[in-house]
Amino acid sequence: MSAPKKVVLAYSGGLDTSIILKWLQNEYGCEVVTFTADLGQGEELEPARAKALMLGIKAENIHIEDVREEFVRDFVFPMFRANALYEGLYLLGTSIARPLIAKRLVEIAAECGADAVAHGATGKGNDQVRFELSALALDPHLRVIAPWREWSLQSRTQLLSYAEANQIPIAKDKRGEAPFSVDANLLHTSSEGKVLENPAEEFPDYVLQRTSRPEDAPNEPEFVEITFDRGDAVAINGEAMSPATILTRLNELGGKHGVGILDLVENRFVGMKSRGVYETPGGTILLEAHRGIEQITLDAGAGHLKDSIMPRYAELIYNGFWFSPEREMLQALIDKSQEHVSGTVRVKLYKGSARTVARWSDHSLYSEKHVTFEEDAGAYDQKDAAGFIRLNALRLKLIATRNARVKG
Amino acid sequence: MSAPKKVVLAYSGGLDTSIILKWLQNEYGCEVVTFTADLGQGEELEPARAKALMLGIKAENIHIEDVREEFVRDFVFPMFRANALYEGLYLLGTSIARPLIAKRLVEIAAECGADAVAHGATGKGNDQVRFELSALALDPHLRVIAPWREWSLQSRTQLLSYAEANQIPIAKDKRGEAPFSVDANLLHTSSEGKVLENPAEEFPDYVLQRTSRPEDAPNEPEFVEITFDRGDAVAINGEAMSPATILTRLNELGGKHGVGILDLVENRFVGMKSRGVYETPGGTILLEAHRGIEQITLDAGAGHLKDSIMPRYAELIYNGFWFSPEREMLQALIDKSQEHVSGTVRVKLYKGSARTVARWSDHSLYSEKHVTFEEDAGAYDQKDAAGFIRLNALRLKLIATRNARVKG
Amino acid sequence: MSAPKKVVLAYSGGLDTSIILKWLQNEYGCEVVTFTADLGQGEELEPARAKALMLGIKAENIHIEDVREEFVRDFVFPMFRANALYEGLYLLGTSIARPLIAKRLVEIAAECGADAVAHGATGKGNDQVRFELSALALDPHLRVIAPWREWSLQSRTQLLSYAEANQIPIAKDKRGEAPFSVDANLLHTSSEGKVLENPAEEFPDYVLQRTSRPEDAPNEPEFVEITFDRGDAVAINGEAMSPATILTRLNELGGKHGVGILDLVENRFVGMKSRGVYETPGGTILLEAHRGIEQITLDAGAGHLKDSIMPRYAELIYNGFWFSPEREMLQALIDKSQEHVSGTVRVKLYKGSARTVARWSDHSLYSEKHVTFEEDAGAYDQKDAAGFIRLNALRLKLIATRNARVKG
Amino acid sequence: MSAPKKVVLAYSGGLDTSIILKWLQNEYGCEVVTFTADLGQGEELEPARAKALMLGIKAENIHIEDVREEFVRDFVFPMFRANALYEGLYLLGTSIARPLIAKRLVEIAAECGADAVAHGATGKGNDQVRFELSALALDPHLRVIAPWREWSLQSRTQLLSYAEANQIPIAKDKRGEAPFSVDANLLHTSSEGKVLENPAEEFPDYVLQRTSRPEDAPNEPEFVEITFDRGDAVAINGEAMSPATILTRLNELGGKHGVGILDLVENRFVGMKSRGVYETPGGTILLEAHRGIEQITLDAGAGHLKDSIMPRYAELIYNGFWFSPEREMLQALIDKSQEHVSGTVRVKLYKGSARTVARWSDHSLYSEKHVTFEEDAGAYDQKDAAGFIRLNALRLKLIATRNARVKG
Repeated sequence: MSAPKKVVLAYSGGLDTSIILKWLQNEYGCEVVTFTADLGQGEELEPARAKALMLGIKAENIHIEDVREEFVRDFVFPMFRANALYEGLYLLGTSIARPLIAKRLVEIAAECGADAVAHGATGKGNDQVRFELSALALDPHLRVIAPWREWSLQSRTQLLSYAEANQIPIAKDKRGEAPFSVDANLLHTSSEGKVLENPAEEFPDYVLQRTSRPEDAPNEPEFVEITFDRGDAVAINGEAMSPATILTRLNELGGKHGVGILDLVENRFVGMKSRGVYETPGGTILLEAHRGIEQITLDAGAGHLKDSIMPRYAELIYNGFWFSPEREMLQALIDKSQEHVSGTVRVKLYKGSARTVARWSDHSLYSEKHVTFEEDAGAYDQKDAAGFIRLNALRLKLIATRNARVKG
Repeated sequence: MSAPKKVVLAYSGGLDTSIILKWLQNEYGCEVVTFTADLGQGEELEPARAKALMLGIKAENIHIEDVREEFVRDFVFPMFRANALYEGLYLLGTSIARPLIAKRLVEIAAECGADAVAHGATGKGNDQVRFELSALALDPHLRVIAPWREWSLQSRTQLLSYAEANQIPIAKDKRGEAPFSVDANLLHTSSEGKVLENPAEEFPDYVLQRTSRPEDAPNEPEFVEITFDRGDAVAINGEAMSPATILTRLNELGGKHGVGILDLVENRFVGMKSRGVYETPGGTILLEAHRGIEQITLDAGAGHLKDSIMPRYAELIYNGFWFSPEREMLQALIDKSQEHVSGTVRVKLYKGSARTVARWSDHSLYSEKHVTFEEDAGAYDQKDAAGFIRLNALRLKLIATRNARVKG
Repeated sequence: MSAPKKVVLAYSGGLDTSIILKWLQNEYGCEVVTFTADLGQGEELEPARAKALMLGIKAENIHIEDVREEFVRDFVFPMFRANALYEGLYLLGTSIARPLIAKRLVEIAAECGADAVAHGATGKGNDQVRFELSALALDPHLRVIAPWREWSLQSRTQLLSYAEANQIPIAKDKRGEAPFSVDANLLHTSSEGKVLENPAEEFPDYVLQRTSRPEDAPNEPEFVEITFDRGDAVAINGEAMSPATILTRLNELGGKHGVGILDLVENRFVGMKSRGVYETPGGTILLEAHRGIEQITLDAGAGHLKDSIMPRYAELIYNGFWFSPEREMLQALIDKSQEHVSGTVRVKLYKGSARTVARWSDHSLYSEKHVTFEEDAGAYDQKDAAGFIRLNALRLKLIATRNARVKG
Repeated sequence: MSAPKKVVLAYSGGLDTSIILKWLQNEYGCEVVTFTADLGQGEELEPARAKALMLGIKAENIHIEDVREEFVRDFVFPMFRANALYEGLYLLGTSIARPLIAKRLVEIAAECGADAVAHGATGKGNDQVRFELSALALDPHLRVIAPWREWSLQSRTQLLSYAEANQIPIAKDKRGEAPFSVDANLLHTSSEGKVLENPAEEFPDYVLQRTSRPEDAPNEPEFVEITFDRGDAVAINGEAMSPATILTRLNELGGKHGVGILDLVENRFVGMKSRGVYETPGGTILLEAHRGIEQITLDAGAGHLKDSIMPRYAELIYNGFWFSPEREMLQALIDKSQEHVSGTVRVKLYKGSARTVARWSDHSLYSEKHVTFEEDAGAYDQKDAAGFIRLNALRLKLIATRNARVKG
């Protein structure tokens, strides 16, 4: 294959993607365009611009964007409509950010006439898959370069040597290796690798990046009211806010109260198990509240159908199939269910837990008149239950009769 | 239909089932046999014997049994192998006890030649369905009597009058109405009705029966190690125990640390929503730990399949279909998956939460050698990922190409 | 409950619904409004008007409507987008007509101020459920009257006596009982009961109403080309037609060639098994052709997802839940998948079978360049398959290694 | 990687695998062991021995086995218990044979101390995946060699030159290329490639290998009775037979009557679509009959659960995951359902179709007494249906009331 001429690189400004930047220049002699996104990871982005300039990137080739609102509105919120949990527990914080980054890479490539995109994910993880499936689904003719799968740099030492040989500045604290690897965005922080690689050992406290240890959280509970409109959070404690503002505010609350810490061994799409520590303070509150509002606004038919397809939906996102027909089909099903998922939920935050304690809605299907232990004024005729049970039992009775007959 | 001659009644010894007992005698002139089970509800059962005798039941017609081990071994544990949660949150504490009671009613009826069984569940709830589907699945020719659907006693006052007219003693604290209704067994305590009927109001603290408020739980976390063998818990902190003993011990631990409180609005099988407060201290720890051990011993194929059928399995149990071919088929699938679900999980209990912090097993599928960020000695060839991604992307590329073509 | 004042009756003009008409008048002293729909059952409807007038119905209370286009466009076609088959074989011809009839009953009731609707389905079948669930989902306050479950007419003789006593004319051929019961509309004819009640006996030839015996079909095959646009058939042999015209034409073709005969024992929603003979000549061709066009226009992700939810979708329609949130959610998923299901399929009709023999589309995802056994000019790199397989095998290898270790 | 020392090759005796045999010797200098299986493909196997000897294989390294009974008993029959159809139509004839071949390759490798196995599947198809996933699941340390992905032989001409250069005899009719590619075993014959690559063109008659054109089939229908025991066919027309004998007999019958021809465009696991013509005469009859016996012996709960998991089960087999935990879990579920699937079905064969016309069983759940249109002697109380419907409608009524309220 001939060398690419112009490559759009997902660039964080850190050491690894700076090495990749240089390697692309050296290996392919190509023009490099950088894309750096503010996804709410909590880092200054302007240093990335300075560093890119210093590494020889033309000013017009440096793209730095705040995509936080798009991230929450078009990716996080649609996913939360599904109550998505991968393997029962993981809120998909890393998974859901990758398609957005890939989408912007592809769009910038189209705008600037690039013939390839590149990313800094390794060959062992899920992120390479998510980046590449998304990019190829959006532009099937684009080339995707994954330097970690191509180059011969095999160790930390080799990477550092390559950096030095190429005049890439190395922050002092990057000389020694980080004790674990971190990914962060507005939805979560994940930590994995190194000191976390033995799942039989509890993770050390210093792993936590944005969440208090429950033991260090306030001794008094705090309550938060979240208002939903058609499945999406639109206000906190009665105050309307944009999607990213809502998630930011919930992160502050959850972080303070030690909410949303998860220590998980999960199955990667590439076939191996890995252990991660996830902090999803705001997302954990949001999931709890969304379930709370669905409890009174979704009927059993809709709710059970959603529950039954959720694992598959979560798996698709985890595996990198955001831009696939089947994810979009499931999204259509989920979105259809949310037309009346509107109302308010009160959640209690305390020492690591977030628990729904109250919920109300103009769209409620809860009927006190039907359920009451008191006199119900004819709302419900208990005798109906006899017929209901008898017809539900009919096939079971026929089975029992048959089984007795063939044994007898 | 002619009157039943001999009826086996699920009898708690309380006021309501005592009224039913009398009503059966009065209404049908039939012989009544009582069955009172110790499911771990935490009440003395011998008073039920005295009361039954007093109400004219022959001594040989009074059956009082400790079924705790059978309950946990044959009902709770098989269900926990599935990580069953109804509507994402409910651990099915009431649902799972009903088929066992029904089974014993049917067995006693067969032993003593009764032609009917009776229960004290109302016509609005799920329990009537669970009792009757189970009973009819086990003996299709048996008659099931549900006095709450048949009699004309419409109010508390009428019930009390009936009791007085029939010399049924009324405990002083039963004169006034209970502020809510309670069901309890070794797996959980549920509270519903009355003061809990408004889901927009937080439940009052006095609702909690067996669990500390998280605010009142110890300020120091406590750790517990649970050992599993083929999916079932077999030891706590290294000490082997019987199933019921394990659940009892976990209840003590969870109750102390405020674990397993759930405030839920759920969908009943009979079509209405209801609000319940559930306390499942030991079960919540057990679920967390079971998931923890599955994380390292189940592969993705097995785990994802289990996840995908779980909602249906939980729904079947909730709806009363324990003794149905489809529940048994799903159980066969689940049990097949548990052959290697053996090992130990350490769970941290603190102020209302139970969280897995470590897990290890001889049956572990976790391979540090594959996942490591360090040099992996050839366990995994990162280049393989390129082909993996390219073939997974192929259909997405063909779609994108097609879509561009038909638009173009 | 007080008597209804005005009832809209689903009226066929036949003996049974004429008796119901009279019974409603006699029993409730209510005004009766009749609704007679042309669903393509192949009967003259004007006699129903004359008969209703004769039975004392006011002219303005007689509604006779041709709903064939609405039936096919809004009910049959959406269902065929799903390739719906109940229990693997049944094309749901009766099930899909009921919600439309119920919808018109409810609409007419609203227009004319009726407080009840009535139907002629018995208490043993599915149709009562379908009528009533649909009606109540559309107007929860409406009363639904099912005379077959209410009246005391227990035998054919009693029915005939009631007819005579009420001056209801009895067609000569209705004196004796029909040898089986028939339901028909543009999608199918079903026959059940009486001579068909023993599933161990082959149905007699005279059961067939609209389909040739395959043995009597032409000795030469015939080919038909069906063109689809976004999942719906829009043309036959290149000629654009309305939905009902398409189905009519396919019925003629299928009927001539003996296509679409099914002898089935199925599970009714009310808990029993029943045996039916179904003739769905046009629908069978349509299903075959729809699958044929999906084969080249749907990718694996979309197609397999559709396949996996189809049984549930079919069950919902069979059970009468057309107007339910979960059916609408599944429909949203299905409809989303059909955006590119456009193109043409050639089907060969011969002696009872309809088989796709060719299909083509501008929206095709079939890529001869990728699949060819010949030189593919680099479209596909066979080496990619090695990595694809190795990563798919990784978890299986880890399992095998573990299993050997714990056994060893 | 070092060269393998001893390789077990899946060897047909044909030109392609003979070239592979030589290539393995040439490329790796390794000892080659051949495995040739009689799966019912209808070819003499002894010539394979002679050819292997001639190519220098030691006599003790030549394994020729009749595995037809194992194939049908342990692979085909378990799959048919599920009514498995891939993409709604394909009976998986090729897919189901691969794991058996892989299993024998692995077993022979273990017996003779080989360190690799090899197969002749190309890099574009599904068979490579099926062989390799199966082999690696059974022996994770075994090396699998796929010459088609490794060698540089790119065209028919190069292959023939290689054969000539290596003294491999070339049958006269192999000089020219075959007009399409064929795979056959006792379950089916598949044809694909070359003249079949355009799905818009009807396949030519000469493609059919074992099935009469329906037009050429007898003008008289023929009936066959198949008896099942716990889900598996055990007798034809009352005569007990071994599994392979049953399938052989059904193939004769189906082939004669033109049954089981399928022209399909399917989705390969490797991401592309392909078109195949499948002939599955006996299997098509068997599927029809199995469904027929399930109709009367499986209840709705069991049957619908089976239907809902079938697409996934079929996909697993198609994709090569026979030896995976999830396939085994699904098999446990399916097998559990078959305990009472015993009885006899009469199928009518005529001009391309196989249709159930009668079925009977001691294990039948069909109850004429319940379903009858006649007086049912109290088996079923039609009034029960009212309560059944009212409770099923309750949630729909609550939705309708809510929707009216929020709109109003």
